[in-house]
Amino acid sequence: MSVHPILIDGCWQASWGDGTFRADNPATCQPLPDEYPISVWQDCDEALAAAVRAFGVLRSLPGGRLAEFLETYAARIETRRDELVEMAHAETALPRSPRLADAELPRTTDQLRQAAAAAREGAWALPTIDTRGNLRSCLAPLGPVWVLGPNNFPFAFGSLSGGDFAAAIAAGNPVIAKANSSHPGTTRIFAEEAELARQATGLPAGTVQLIYRIRHADGERAVADPRTGAAGYTGSRAAGLKLKAAADLAGKPIYLELSSVNPVVVLPGALRERGEQLAEEFTASCLAGTGQFCTNPGLVLLVKGDAADAFVRRVAECFQAAPVGTLLSRSVETSLRSSLHTLRAAGAQVVVGDRPGGGQGYCHANTLLSVSGEQFLRAAEALQTEAFGNCSLLVIADDVEQLSQALDRLDGSLTGCVYSDTAGSDDADYERIAPCLRQRVGRLLNDKMPTGVAVSPAMNHGGPYPATGHPGFTAVGIPASLRRFAALHCYDNVRPHRLPPCLQDRNPNGAMWRWIDGRWTQADVGK
Amino acid sequence: MSVHPILIDGCWQASWGDGTFRADNPATCQPLPDEYPISVWQDCDEALAAAVRAFGVLRSLPGGRLAEFLETYAARIETRRDELVEMAHAETALPRSPRLADAELPRTTDQLRQAAAAAREGAWALPTIDTRGNLRSCLAPLGPVWVLGPNNFPFAFGSLSGGDFAAAIAAGNPVIAKANSSHPGTTRIFAEEAELARQATGLPAGTVQLIYRIRHADGERAVADPRTGAAGYTGSRAAGLKLKAAADLAGKPIYLELSSVNPVVVLPGALRERGEQLAEEFTASCLAGTGQFCTNPGLVLLVKGDAADAFVRRVAECFQAAPVGTLLSRSVETSLRSSLHTLRAAGAQVVVGDRPGGGQGYCHANTLLSVSGEQFLRAAEALQTEAFGNCSLLVIADDVEQLSQALDRLDGSLTGCVYSDTAGSDDADYERIAPCLRQRVGRLLNDKMPTGVAVSPAMNHGGPYPATGHPGFTAVGIPASLRRFAALHCYDNVRPHRLPPCLQDRNPNGAMWRWIDGRWTQADVGK
Repeated sequence: MSVHPILIDGCWQASWGDGTFRADNPATCQPLPDEYPISVWQDCDEALAAAVRAFGVLRSLPGGRLAEFLETYAARIETRRDELVEMAHAETALPRSPRLADAELPRTTDQLRQAAAAAREGAWALPTIDTRGNLRSCLAPLGPVWVLGPNNFPFAFGSLSGGDFAAAIAAGNPVIAKANSSHPGTTRIFAEEAELARQATGLPAGTVQLIYRIRHADGERAVADPRTGAAGYTGSRAAGLKLKAAADLAGKPIYLELSSVNPVVVLPGALRERGEQLAEEFTASCLAGTGQFCTNPGLVLLVKGDAADAFVRRVAECFQAAPVGTLLSRSVETSLRSSLHTLRAAGAQVVVGDRPGGGQGYCHANTLLSVSGEQFLRAAEALQTEAFGNCSLLVIADDVEQLSQALDRLDGSLTGCVYSDTAGSDDADYERIAPCLRQRVGRLLNDKMPTGVAVSPAMNHGGPYPATGHPGFTAVGIPASLRRFAALHCYDNVRPHRLPPCLQDRNPNGAMWRWIDGRWTQADVGK
Repeated sequence: MSVHPILIDGCWQASWGDGTFRADNPATCQPLPDEYPISVWQDCDEALAAAVRAFGVLRSLPGGRLAEFLETYAARIETRRDELVEMAHAETALPRSPRLADAELPRTTDQLRQAAAAAREGAWALPTIDTRGNLRSCLAPLGPVWVLGPNNFPFAFGSLSGGDFAAAIAAGNPVIAKANSSHPGTTRIFAEEAELARQATGLPAGTVQLIYRIRHADGERAVADPRTGAAGYTGSRAAGLKLKAAADLAGKPIYLELSSVNPVVVLPGALRERGEQLAEEFTASCLAGTGQFCTNPGLVLLVKGDAADAFVRRVAECFQAAPVGTLLSRSVETSLRSSLHTLRAAGAQVVVGDRPGGGQGYCHANTLLSVSGEQFLRAAEALQTEAFGNCSLLVIADDVEQLSQALDRLDGSLTGCVYSDTAGSDDADYERIAPCLRQRVGRLLNDKMPTGVAVSPAMNHGGPYPATGHPGFTAVGIPASLRRFAALHCYDNVRPHRLPPCLQDRNPNGAMWRWIDGRWTQADVGK
């Protein structure tokens, strides 16, 4: 079988590289038939040149044009739903249903449509008008955006279909997608439909481009290239920090979503009140997608006692009873074992699991580890090692004070949860610990597991370093996620007809919210 | 005379360092009598520890409390107006009036009051409520903010009085100010009043702290310290990029305002129509504050011809006729000469000036350089060297096409201006060049010099790298400047009474704009 072409400047063309790779089927550990190119710098260079040309047109198009593209693309995705589900299932072993077909695909098209609506309406850009000073400003697109998506959500976080893609396009930027190497075929189908949607809606060639794999050095060169506007990366901390260093040195914005242990605190009253139910809720969240969610609850903090003992016993039973899922790739399996080894070396005890096998293909037993609060404080850094997969570490503190000390030692995470009882007996403890936790996470939850990440304007899928690279931005949630891929443009005394439509006196669509002379309004200036 | 104490944790105490320094009077080149300490790491460490304690209180105070402090401080500053003006005049040689007393001081107190109003109202935090998903989010303070201010605006950009200070405090963060070494006395007076205002309004000790000078290595350590929330720096590119590298490596946000040449394009029709008037307007802008504005027009692009020749002649006359101002320090004088040398070595010709002296104290003749468009394209990097002071470089292009090529070679700047005629003969050229310029600057002006930076909600005092470190943020303008010193905090299913006031159903002050279920409103949830 011949090597698949890459998508550059509106054409499917051969890569300049002569290396190739195949994805594995994680359920069989066997390579899939399709062969994909490993790109060389010349591919990246051509993509950047085309993206710069596309940007010259895109940056002054009305948001409605971008919206048409996103909506056409979403509809086209739905026509290839079965094929996408089959391909993603083969490449990731994620269940066809409900996961891929009924949860992730609708979420993906919904997200593209929400991005379209935001582009059409325009308030994402925070248009701001000061009539007295004749100063006007708004956010505006930055230029070519590299999107490097993760392995664990082939649709909703896919390089050419997910949240970063939708946000970058809706803000008016061309996207150069680098597929995740574990699901090139899925990304290819998306690219085929995105390119057809681009043609159908008359956006410039180079608006969407795809390469499958690049060497690390070329990735670092790409995010730092003078022509690059910004980059979005979701994946491992090690690779992400190398990209960050390269982008930082060149002064290029890069938005990262890296590792996160997502601490969950179950306070004593909640354990007493509904420990068994919480054990099941926790198990379902922790083992969903074989634990391969960015928001997987990887660290559970409890106060020792009978209720905690009962909770741990029940979780152990649930972990043993649950089927062992397939991991996304050989490297996920290897990395999970290595992380579990690190955790054990730092003092974590195995409660259940930590054995190879037990499921289909790449897999490892559902694993529950445990450590005392005292031991956690002794080796807090090592015991926060992210073990990406179907496992979690319990920290059994002597008391709430020690639990609070443990929270103070946590690195930044995407999420943090606190369960407390309904009668109020945990309220004082909540007041004690919530402020510590609040500063260490992007999203604070009550009485709820973190694995659901709604595409809501109020979502924060982000958090303090090293969960992400900047604590002020979210990767999920519209319109806020668009603001990552934008520069602030101010117009000072610029003649009225030369202003972008969103800053002219007349509201360009009668619906755009603008901050005019100290208030948010949908009216024209002076009305 | 004894060494001045530093302000740590609410106490004026001796520095742990034994090195000292004095500021010069730039008009006499003689040291001023006051002796200030050069701090060592232990001073920084104590300041950070105190700031962390202060933050524990500050972060949950209502914005109204921060507003009271800022307003009390602004009023106290006015009671020491004469002393501030005298001290700043002695330390910077900037004119007492109108510059210091009538322009910069009122601007400073106005900015503090605008920040107070923003803190009290609260919409700066973009409170966002999704009632269907029970998700709520807002921006929230980050933690201790280091502010390292520049030499050129001792009041309005001062470490303890300027825009970064006002923004960081209004967003709920404690500030550790490092005075600019050229005006320690001015900063000391501000710190005295800030500390008294803090006590009067009951904010925690450690909310405002002051050290005068630190070694570079300690600065890099400070911005990267785990306890640090963020940093704001305004100053030279070399020092700023070292701080950026240290902060980036630690994943700490740092907001920079670095060098900027601020290109000004005068199109042929405008030159013909009002060349003489523009020559005078340009001279006034370029020599204001002896050219030591961040937004000083350092690069003027013209198309060759009779009108350009006449413009250059008139500017040359004006530069020669204008008094030679005093530069801020010996190092500004040295650096200006060195930059002029670099520009000449890259092919720039002296039109007038470029001689030492001619004024009081540290000074250099008002200097106008010139280079052809062709030569600019040959050495575009060197010819963009910022020459901070009373000088500017003219680029005389063969035609608008070559001028446009020159614009394409520009690094990021804070501002870019285009002058065009009123009859419309320049309109086609404007259309040709404005898109190039737009991408390279934070603020685009028409028919106006860039040196006025209004404190307006629509201002952008920012721009692409290397003018700043991130193109999405402004250092001037409220409320946007507050958003730099904030993290996005999401609350998912959090019990109503545990939400911060700005996210509760009831609008906390009846005036706060919030984004509720897809619209901006000042109403309560459900109203």
